[in-house]
Amino acid sequence: MAKIPAKVASKAKQISVLLMDVDGTLTDGSVTLASTPDNHALEVKTFDAHDGQGLTLAVTAGLRTGVITGRSSAALRRRCKELDIEFVYEKQGHKIAAYEDVLRKTGAKESEVAFLGDDLPDLTIMRRVGLAVAVANAAPEVRRAADYRTKAVGGKGAAREVVELILKSKGIWEEMIDKARA
Amino acid sequence: MAKIPAKVASKAKQISVLLMDVDGTLTDGSVTLASTPDNHALEVKTFDAHDGQGLTLAVTAGLRTGVITGRSSAALRRRCKELDIEFVYEKQGHKIAAYEDVLRKTGAKESEVAFLGDDLPDLTIMRRVGLAVAVANAAPEVRRAADYRTKAVGGKGAAREVVELILKSKGIWEEMIDKARA
Amino acid sequence: MAKIPAKVASKAKQISVLLMDVDGTLTDGSVTLASTPDNHALEVKTFDAHDGQGLTLAVTAGLRTGVITGRSSAALRRRCKELDIEFVYEKQGHKIAAYEDVLRKTGAKESEVAFLGDDLPDLTIMRRVGLAVAVANAAPEVRRAADYRTKAVGGKGAAREVVELILKSKGIWEEMIDKARA
Amino acid sequence: MAKIPAKVASKAKQISVLLMDVDGTLTDGSVTLASTPDNHALEVKTFDAHDGQGLTLAVTAGLRTGVITGRSSAALRRRCKELDIEFVYEKQGHKIAAYEDVLRKTGAKESEVAFLGDDLPDLTIMRRVGLAVAVANAAPEVRRAADYRTKAVGGKGAAREVVELILKSKGIWEEMIDKARA
Repeated sequence: MAKIPAKVASKAKQISVLLMDVDGTLTDGSVTLASTPDNHALEVKTFDAHDGQGLTLAVTAGLRTGVITGRSSAALRRRCKELDIEFVYEKQGHKIAAYEDVLRKTGAKESEVAFLGDDLPDLTIMRRVGLAVAVANAAPEVRRAADYRTKAVGGKGAAREVVELILKSKGIWEEMIDKARA
Repeated sequence: MAKIPAKVASKAKQISVLLMDVDGTLTDGSVTLASTPDNHALEVKTFDAHDGQGLTLAVTAGLRTGVITGRSSAALRRRCKELDIEFVYEKQGHKIAAYEDVLRKTGAKESEVAFLGDDLPDLTIMRRVGLAVAVANAAPEVRRAADYRTKAVGGKGAAREVVELILKSKGIWEEMIDKARA
Repeated sequence: MAKIPAKVASKAKQISVLLMDVDGTLTDGSVTLASTPDNHALEVKTFDAHDGQGLTLAVTAGLRTGVITGRSSAALRRRCKELDIEFVYEKQGHKIAAYEDVLRKTGAKESEVAFLGDDLPDLTIMRRVGLAVAVANAAPEVRRAADYRTKAVGGKGAAREVVELILKSKGIWEEMIDKARA
Repeated sequence: MAKIPAKVASKAKQISVLLMDVDGTLTDGSVTLASTPDNHALEVKTFDAHDGQGLTLAVTAGLRTGVITGRSSAALRRRCKELDIEFVYEKQGHKIAAYEDVLRKTGAKESEVAFLGDDLPDLTIMRRVGLAVAVANAAPEVRRAADYRTKAVGGKGAAREVVELILKSKGIWEEMIDKARA
C-alpha cells in the first residue's frame, strides 16, 4: 500500500462500519456457474485469503463488516460466516435500502461508514458514505466517485488494503499483526 | 475504452441486435470440466460481472441480445437467463444458420446486427454483420476481419466494452448509468 | 506466432503424430480438486478453447493426436473425446512406454512424431521425437531440450501454436481456416 | 531461479524438513467455495503441477514435508496424499503448536527446518526456523521476516523454487532430474 493521503486518513480514522460489494470487489468479477447432473447450475465463488485475513483482523479490531450484493449463493454465505461478516444482504437489485438498514441497525453516522465497490450499482451508496473506495479495476464512473482507489484489483487484496488503510489511519495496525489467526 | 473512431461510431449507432460467441468471448477461453462421482464430467463456465452489467444495460436500453456457440451447458443457459439474453443457440458447429434465424426472427437488417467473436468459426458471421468486433486476444484472422477490436480480452470486459461502444455511439450511455441494477 | 525458423519448419513438415503432456501443457498447470460431500475430492481440469480449435483442425488435416499423463480424470477423458484425440494414456509415471506403444500402433518413424511438454518427466520422450516443443513457461531443463519453444504458455494457446507451426510448415494452414467448426 | 546467495545456500543445505502454509503458498490465495444443491458450500483448491513435481522430488531426495493451515478440506488431504506429504495439520488458528509437534516427531533441530509462507499467521514459525522463505507476493511483514523470497508467487511455482533451492544447495538437484516421475 502506498502512503495514505492526509485527507483520506482523516476520513478513514472515523470508520466503524465497513460495507462491501461482492462480485468484482471481494471476487475478481468472475461469475462461475457449475452445471449439475439435473441440468441446473450452481454458483462457485472465489475469494482471496489475504482479503480474508484482513477482514478477520478488522472484526478483531472492533469494526463491523457487511456485504451488499445483487446475487445470492451458499458459497458467499459460507465465506461471510468464516470471516464473521455481520451484515449479509443478497439479491439487492438496488443497494440503497440495505445501506439504510445498516445505518438503522448500527446507529452509525454516514461519516463512520466505508464502502468498497467496483461497478455502477455501487454508486448510490458511494455518494453517501464517509469513505468511498474503488478497487483498482473499477468502472471509470466508480473510480471517479471514490475518495480512494486501491492498488489491488478486486478479489486480489482490495479488501485487505482497505482494512489496512483504516487500521493504519487509526494507528492500530501494528498491534493487530500479532493477533492474526490462520 | 479509447475514443471511438467516427467510422465505427457510425456503424455502431445503427445496431439493434448484439450477437456473441461464448467461449473466448464471454469467457476467457477456459473450457473447464469437473469430474463427477459416476465418471462423467460436467461443464463449469466463468463469466464476468462487468460484462453482465453491460449486457443487462443493453437490454434495458432496448437492444436484443443473443449467443451462438458450438458447446452446450446448463451453466451457459443459467447465465443467459440471468442477463435476459433472448437468443441462445447451442451446439452450432457452423454458426451461420443460427445467424440467419436471428435475422428472420428479428426482421433486422444485417447492418443493424453486431457480432463479437474470437476465433475461426466466428468469421462467417463477422463478414456479414454491420459491426464485427474482435476481442483483444482473438485469433489474428479474426482481428483482421473486425471493424473494431476491444481493449479488453475475452471474458474480462470485452462484451461490456461493446455495449458501451454501441450505447455511447447512440448517445445514451450517460442516461443508462443511473438505471444500473446489481 | 513468430516466423518459423527454417530448421524447425523442416522438422515440422514431416510430422504425422502429435503427442502432448496434459498438466502444464494442455492446462496452465493448475491441479484443481473439488471436495465432495462424502469427503473425497474430484479433479476439475481447465483446457483452452483456442487449443481445442487447433487440435480439432489438426485431426481434420489428417494428423493423429494423443496425450500421455501421470494423472487420470473423467474431465480429461471427456475433453479428449470432444477433440477426437486418438491416444489417451493416463497414470503414466514414466512416459516412455506409452510413447513406444504409439510408435508401434501408428507405424510412424520417430522423425514423424512431435511432442509438446513442460516438465521433467517429459524429457525422455522429447530427446527422441522428431520435433520436441516446450511451452513458454516450461522448466528450464525442458526448454533447453526443445527444438522449439512456444510463445504461448501452457494451457493458453501452446497447443494451438504447435498445430499452426506444423500445418503452416506443411503449407496447409490457410486452407484449414475455412474448415473450422465451433 | 536466480543464483543462490551464499548465506542462503549455507542455511538451505542443512534442511531436512520442509514445512509450508497452504493458502497463498501452495495455492494462489484463492479461497474457492462451490455451492451444493442442499445449500452448503464445499471447498475447491487449486494447486500447481510444477510445485507437485518439486515436492515429489523432495521426498525422493529424502526430505520430509508437511503443511500447516488454518483451513480444512478433502481437496487438500487428497493433494497431500498424492505428493507423499507426511505432516498435515489442518484447522490451526495458531500454527506454532503444530510446528513444535513436528520438531518432536522428527527430532530435527530448528536449523534443519525450512518454512514457506505468505501471510501474518506464518510469522511465528518463520522467526524460529533455520530457513524462512516468503513467496514473492507475501505480505510485506512476511517478506521482511524471510531469509529468502521466491521469484514465483504463491501457488505458481514457489514451492518448486524452494525445493530446487534446497536440493541445489545440497548439490543433488542434477541427479534428481532423471528420477522425476509424472
